[in-house]
Amino acid sequence: MQLQIHIGPEPIVRPQPAPVIDAGVGALAEFTGLARGEENGASIGGLIYEAYQPMAEREIARIVTKLCGARPVLGVRVVHRLGRVPVGEAAIYVAVVAKHRAEAFALLAGFMDLLKQDVPIWKTDTF
Amino acid sequence: MQLQIHIGPEPIVRPQPAPVIDAGVGALAEFTGLARGEENGASIGGLIYEAYQPMAEREIARIVTKLCGARPVLGVRVVHRLGRVPVGEAAIYVAVVAKHRAEAFALLAGFMDLLKQDVPIWKTDTF
Repeated sequence: MQLQIHIGPEPIVRPQPAPVIDAGVGALAEFTGLARGEENGASIGGLIYEAYQPMAEREIARIVTKLCGARPVLGVRVVHRLGRVPVGEAAIYVAVVAKHRAEAFALLAGFMDLLKQDVPIWKTDTF
Repeated sequence: MQLQIHIGPEPIVRPQPAPVIDAGVGALAEFTGLARGEENGASIGGLIYEAYQPMAEREIARIVTKLCGARPVLGVRVVHRLGRVPVGEAAIYVAVVAKHRAEAFALLAGFMDLLKQDVPIWKTDTF
């Protein structure tokens, strides 16, 4: 399994064409999380993300490895933006390639749940 | 809810930047289904897709509308390629934009299951 992690301040660009393609890949599942214009009913100008970066990368790797133990996939790419993320721009991008779609969807959804729960990346609103 | 459907012989190009973005969108979930180099253990050169197109489009719209009734999303784009799809190229691309990721993932996975089951699009292998 190929794992790529990038955490940094650059705007997130979705790869074109699709990442990590070989003849065994039948499914590519991707998630992009974007900064919305409102939080708890109040209008906001964006989000600010901070991370304890070495530990965030270790935790992301641990989560992916754990989830892959149950349902193996072929590759995972995780990109998380830090600093100010304006409304409409991406804060996170996750891509999973697998033989079939079931394991790709399972890893993608499971990863996002555990990311929010376990990874030391914090967000605050900007008004 | 915005729905775009395209069924045709052109190679599928993933939109860059992400489709249907407005300030209310927090989640973009995408699935790309690719032709793999083997089917049931045998090496293949690609897949050939045929569709009864008017009914396929109606069925896709029906499935999306039905799934949205339970968990509303903001937009769905479905692109299905017809004719010969070489190994490593995309046969289907589905994008879902929503306020939050849970409803985007639910619609994407549910749609793919019903597509295979209900929509008159057939595939054969090429050797």
